[in-house]
Parts: sequence; C-alpha cells; structure tokens
Amino acid sequence: MFPLEQSKLDKAIELLSIIDITSATIRQVCALASLLEEEAGEKMVHLEMGNPGLPAEDVGIEAEISALREGVAGHYPNIAGIPSLKKNGSEFVKAFLGVEIPPKAFVPTVGSMQGSFTLMLLLGQRIPGKDTMLFLNPGFPAQRNQAKLLGLKEESFDIYSYRGKKLEAKLESYLSKGNVTGLIYSNPNNPAWTNLTEEELEIIGRLATKYDVIVLEDLAYFGMDFRRDVSHPYEAPFGATVARYTDNYILMLSGSKIFSYAGQRIAIVAMSGSVYERRYKYLEEFYEMPVFGDAYIFGVLYCASSGTSHSAQYALSAMFEKAVKGELPFVEHCREYARKAERTKKIFTDNGFHIVYEKDGDNPISDGFFFTIGYPGLSSKEIQMELLRHGVASISLASAGSEQPGVRICVSMIRSEEDYENLDRYLKEFNRQHRSS
Amino acid sequence: MFPLEQSKLDKAIELLSIIDITSATIRQVCALASLLEEEAGEKMVHLEMGNPGLPAEDVGIEAEISALREGVAGHYPNIAGIPSLKKNGSEFVKAFLGVEIPPKAFVPTVGSMQGSFTLMLLLGQRIPGKDTMLFLNPGFPAQRNQAKLLGLKEESFDIYSYRGKKLEAKLESYLSKGNVTGLIYSNPNNPAWTNLTEEELEIIGRLATKYDVIVLEDLAYFGMDFRRDVSHPYEAPFGATVARYTDNYILMLSGSKIFSYAGQRIAIVAMSGSVYERRYKYLEEFYEMPVFGDAYIFGVLYCASSGTSHSAQYALSAMFEKAVKGELPFVEHCREYARKAERTKKIFTDNGFHIVYEKDGDNPISDGFFFTIGYPGLSSKEIQMELLRHGVASISLASAGSEQPGVRICVSMIRSEEDYENLDRYLKEFNRQHRSS
Repeated sequence: MFPLEQSKLDKAIELLSIIDITSATIRQVCALASLLEEEAGEKMVHLEMGNPGLPAEDVGIEAEISALREGVAGHYPNIAGIPSLKKNGSEFVKAFLGVEIPPKAFVPTVGSMQGSFTLMLLLGQRIPGKDTMLFLNPGFPAQRNQAKLLGLKEESFDIYSYRGKKLEAKLESYLSKGNVTGLIYSNPNNPAWTNLTEEELEIIGRLATKYDVIVLEDLAYFGMDFRRDVSHPYEAPFGATVARYTDNYILMLSGSKIFSYAGQRIAIVAMSGSVYERRYKYLEEFYEMPVFGDAYIFGVLYCASSGTSHSAQYALSAMFEKAVKGELPFVEHCREYARKAERTKKIFTDNGFHIVYEKDGDNPISDGFFFTIGYPGLSSKEIQMELLRHGVASISLASAGSEQPGVRICVSMIRSEEDYENLDRYLKEFNRQHRSS
Repeated sequence: MFPLEQSKLDKAIELLSIIDITSATIRQVCALASLLEEEAGEKMVHLEMGNPGLPAEDVGIEAEISALREGVAGHYPNIAGIPSLKKNGSEFVKAFLGVEIPPKAFVPTVGSMQGSFTLMLLLGQRIPGKDTMLFLNPGFPAQRNQAKLLGLKEESFDIYSYRGKKLEAKLESYLSKGNVTGLIYSNPNNPAWTNLTEEELEIIGRLATKYDVIVLEDLAYFGMDFRRDVSHPYEAPFGATVARYTDNYILMLSGSKIFSYAGQRIAIVAMSGSVYERRYKYLEEFYEMPVFGDAYIFGVLYCASSGTSHSAQYALSAMFEKAVKGELPFVEHCREYARKAERTKKIFTDNGFHIVYEKDGDNPISDGFFFTIGYPGLSSKEIQMELLRHGVASISLASAGSEQPGVRICVSMIRSEEDYENLDRYLKEFNRQHRSS
C-alpha cells in the first residue's frame, strides 16, 4: 500500500544504482516505479513518461504494411528519404505551418532524437569557434545529454523570468558573444507546456539572423496548443514557428506524438532551403561536401545509421498526405490529452499543488501533454521523492534545466477512471502529511 | 555508348561536387553511375553497392506485419530490445557460432552502422588515455568515417602482408602502446572477402585480453564463407569468431545481408557477458551509470535514437527463431552470391584482371558477396576511373584503407544475363585499350 516507508524507497533507488533521482533518465524512473509498484502491491499513477497513450494512426500502419508487402524491406532506403515523404512533408509544413520548404530539404530521421543528435553534431562543426549550443530551459533533458555526449559546449537559461520583451536583452547577452552555433527549444514546451508567443518568436528569429545562429525548433507536439485551432489545412491560423522570422531554422517534426507513432522511430528534419544550401569551408575539408544539407545527409546520417526504416518512411508519408487532404484529423485525436490534463490539473490544485509555468503572455497555458506543478515549501527533489513514496511517478523540473522547484506531469499514460481515483486518493494523503507538517 | 570520353566522366564528377573519386562514398559513386548511364544511353554494370539483391525473408515480413497489426507502432520500443529478440539472438549465436551470451547482453541497433558508431563512442570514453581505434584494413570505409566523426584517434594497417603468424608481432606493435581501446574488422571481410583463420583469430583474441582491447567483430556477412558449412544449428562446424579466444568482444550481427533485410535498418549488438558487466569510473561520472552495458543502452543508444523500430525488432526476432529451428535456410539463400561471384570473377580474370586478396592461409578465398581485382600497371584510381568510363561502377580499394592497387567488386546487384554480357563486352574493350597501351 502507498505511501511506502522512506526506507523502502531508498532501497529501491539503491538497487537500481540511481545516483541522483533528480537527474535520473525517464527510463530509470520508469524502472523505479515498477519496483515500487511491486513493493506496495498497488498501482502507481504513471505521470513520468510520454508514451503516446493513443493508438497509432491506422493510415500509417496500413501504408507500412503495404510497403512491406511490396518488398521494401529488401532494399536500403534512400538516406535522403523516399521522394513521397519529402514531397508530403513539404505539403504538410505548407498546409499547417504556412511555410514553404523545398522537398529536397526534408530528411527522415530515426525519431527526432536522432534528428537533434545528428544536427547538433554538424552545427558544432560548421564554423570553427562556434562551438556552443544554447538551450532555452526548461527543456527536454535528453537533448542536453546529447550535446554533452557530442562534446559540445552549452549555455542555457530558464525562460521563466524572461518572457515577452524581456527575452530580447537576455538572449542577446548570449548570442552577442559569437560562440553560439545553434539554439534549441521545443514548442509546445517539454516539460512546461508553455508556447512561445509571436513576440518571442520574432525576437528569436531576428537575433538568430543577426548573429548567424541556427534555430532547432522541435515541433514534437505540433498542433497541441489547443487554444489556437490549426487543424484546417491551408487556412489560418497556422502553427506558431520561428520560420516566419528567420531563414536560419531547422524544424524537427516527429510522428511519435502527432500521429502516436513512437514505436517506429520516425521523424523528419526540415531545414530552410537557405540552410540546406549554405556552404562551409570546414565541411568541405571534413566531408569533402561543402553544402550543409549534403554533409548532413551523406556525411552525418550515413554514419549514424545509414537511413531510417524503409517502411516507416511510407507510414509517415501517408499520414502527412492524409492530414493535408483533411482526411486525418490528428489535432482532434490529440485533443484527448487536453481533456486528461484538465482533470489531472484539477486533482493536483485541489490538493494543495500549484501550476509552476502557468502563462504565455497574459494567457493561461494550454491544456495538453504536460504541465508542471509545485508544492509550497518543497524542493524539486522533495516533491519527486514524496510523490514516488505516495504512488505517483514524475520527472524533476531540475532535470529539465528549470530553476523553479517542481516536477513535470505527463498525462499520456492515464488510461482509466481508476487512475484518476488513485491519484486523488494519493494526493489527499500527500497533502494531509505535508500540510500538517 | 560506353566507353565514354574522359571529358564526360570528368564533367559528371564535377557536377556532383565529388572532390576525390577514391574517397567518395558509395552513395556518391551510385549517383555518379546514374549520371553516366544517362550520358551513355546504355546500362552500367553496378558492382559498387552492397544492396542485398535478394528478396527480404518472408518470415521477417510476416512477423513485422503481425506486430504492426497488434499495435506496436503506438508504443516506444524498449531501448534494450524486446525480450523475444534478446532471447532468440542468444539462441542464434549459440546455434551457429557455438558461443554462449546472455540475452541481457543483446541490444538492437538501427543497422550495424548505428552499432559501430555508438559502440566506438563508448569505447572512446571507458578509460582515459585509451582513445584510439585500431582498424584491420582493408575495411568498411564508413567505419573509419565514424571514428573520425567521433573525434577518435585511429591506427590501421593493411593485413595483406601480415597474414598468419606474421600478424602477432604486427598487432602487438600497436596494442602494446596501451592507447588502443578497440579493434574493428569485418569477417568475412568487406571489401576483400578474406576470412581470418583460426590461427589469426587466436592471436587477436589473446592480445586483446593481454592489452585490454575490446574487439568489435562485424559479422555482417555471417555464414557466407561457403567453404565452411555452418548452416546446421547446434552442430559443428560453427562460424569463425574471436569469441572463442577472448571475453573482450562485441559482435555485430545485421539482418541486412544475412536475411536480406537492409531496408528496415535492424541489427543486433551482442557483447560478452563480461564486457556488459564491466564497471568504469568514467562512465559512472559521465552517465551516472558505471556498468558498460547499461551506459551503452540507457546512455548512448537513448541519445542516438531512443531505440530501434519496434516492428523490425519482431522481424529479426522471428528470423533468428526460425533459423535456429532449421526452418529458415538463410545460408542456402545467400549462396546465390557465391554463384554470381564465380561467374563474375571469371569474366574479370579472362580479361586481364587478377584477384588482389586471393588467399586465407593456403586456401583460395571463398566466393561470396565481394572480391577485389587489380589490373597490371594501373593504380586504384586509374582502375576505378577507367572502369567507370567503360560502364562498370566499383569502389576503390584505397578508400578501404588497402595499400594494394585495385577496386572492390560487389556482385549483389547483378540481376540478369544481360549484366554478365555487358560486363564481358565492357571489360573486353577495357582490356583491348590497356593491353595495347
């Protein structure tokens, strides 16, 4: 039964060789949650991991099965991507973001994880001296690990206190040093579910151009800022993107959340035509390929995995195509997360918790895949540990580079009424213990 | 019509921005061959690329389709691999290599390209000071590019003059310096199709143990040394492997060639149990995970792509399972390459060419996927360029780190009688021009 005794939690952490819970990976927290579940003989509420939680889109599955039947498994995929995926990716971006990118500049990757990993590698090479990635925090911890693994330098700041106009001076204080090659963030934000405003995107775009910084915009949760209905192809409003304010951008669009297609590890990188065609002396020397896009595909991606699953490319291509035709209502499908978030947030706030990152400009954040919560007087680590002890798994905000005390809540794994009931029961006990202490 | 004029070849090379043909990637040579084909209005003989050339095994395709129908596309795959793949991989290695490796130490990768890339990354970190990869040349050029991309130091030597007992002193002269962390080769060899003898494998294994070097053995073409029939599960003779002579090994087994499954980018890394469990101070500090195998899975692979296509894991698992039961005669299926090699070799040797790497010990090399050819008085570059001009695409031996003049011939793309006829016609003209010059 939850809550567990502290000693049992400590023992499980030791058993898994987790050195510091606040910097543990999501997979480590999952493993820990399983152990605690066994120990308690009772279900945990899993709010740690962003597994899609919806069934994969049938359109993708059927396209993938057809491609397999046609024999694509026997042939290396073109590393640059199958032509239909490149074309349909370009249409998708035009239809839903209102941005024109040539098919040539669309390249499939093994999830956006491979996208950011391999792009950062190349960004670290393009100009000697530009050796630093700037992270807008809070952010996806794995991306900071990637930079570390690649031996890149990094800078970061928590945007919590620098929203709106205040972003400009803060951002310029980093970019003006000249050592930043790329800037990365996800929008909607993982973990805070904030969305950069048009004012903020304009600042980022303008400064990226001014200081020759390339923006990696991770659109993993595209369409899930439900305050703005982007579900009508080729009609405003379009999705928010820095691509409207600079040519120095590379978008990452994953099938994992948008189409609930995480299992097949399929995403697409879309660089502006001008980024693709840029020529660098270093790339010419290192890869014998001066053109950025060519060096990316035939230099980096070739080395990283020689391309992406052939059949999964057909899946993503078909899903883009149907979405563009208005025959695959992916935004509506994902709205389920907003419904879950609304209920889950209420259970937290009814039990003494508050939303940490709560506004974009003057507007409350959207309901969606994630939100962040804090509890009066408790640190990130204390909240995470105490929630674990009480039967609730989550990820520390500290691990996401946030300076605010709190944890990330992901609603995707909530499946049943029982989960809501357990959550309410566990948090009531949490609140009872901490309110009175 | 072939032969083309020299100026037309030069123009095509310039158009593709290929700076040096001998170091061009296979994909660049493919692109060049397409251009030349158009220019000549006649078919090239494609001997450059190792596309499987056989249909993908049905067992894999059916397993993959079933998994997709069951909904695996909607869930992140376990990065450590689905349990059945780990178990069946372990059985496959036991049945065909006669080696025991625990299922835990089997991990799927996005092709062996991701395997070698990510393993080299970790090998470069495990012990400060051990920062160098040793390549037994000739070898797969992409693997040397990977080391370069990772910023690893490298050493290499051409085994041409160091076969048999002579290998020991040569190898020890490198390993005794203490800076080598890993040693990599493919067996059967890409590009030379040599196979290390038991005597040579014993030397490599013994010295790897002595100097704490980890051997990456790439078994991409496992079973295709057709001089030794390893097709009977759990019966000798077993496949040749260094695993019999050291615990310091990591095997890479790709589905691409063995099961003609290149399109789905699926392979497996199999480390010895003792390599998996080794603990390193540096890995503890860097990943907060001291255990080599854990750091590989949850540290490196998590960052590189967060796992491998869920459905493709089911495919490889099923193919391993059927092979072990004797119900998937993969060795027999691949024997088609030997038949093609025999005919193709004869056409080359009938027209003035010779086999460069021609023996293992006292025995002629096996017929199989690749072989190497030279032509009297011509350098690697001259042979490659002149063959291109005459309608035959190949890869330079220089690009594979060989010091011998010649090119690699891959027979997998030969599809029809017309290909053999064209090859004979083109080489007759080649020989006529060069013999008389």
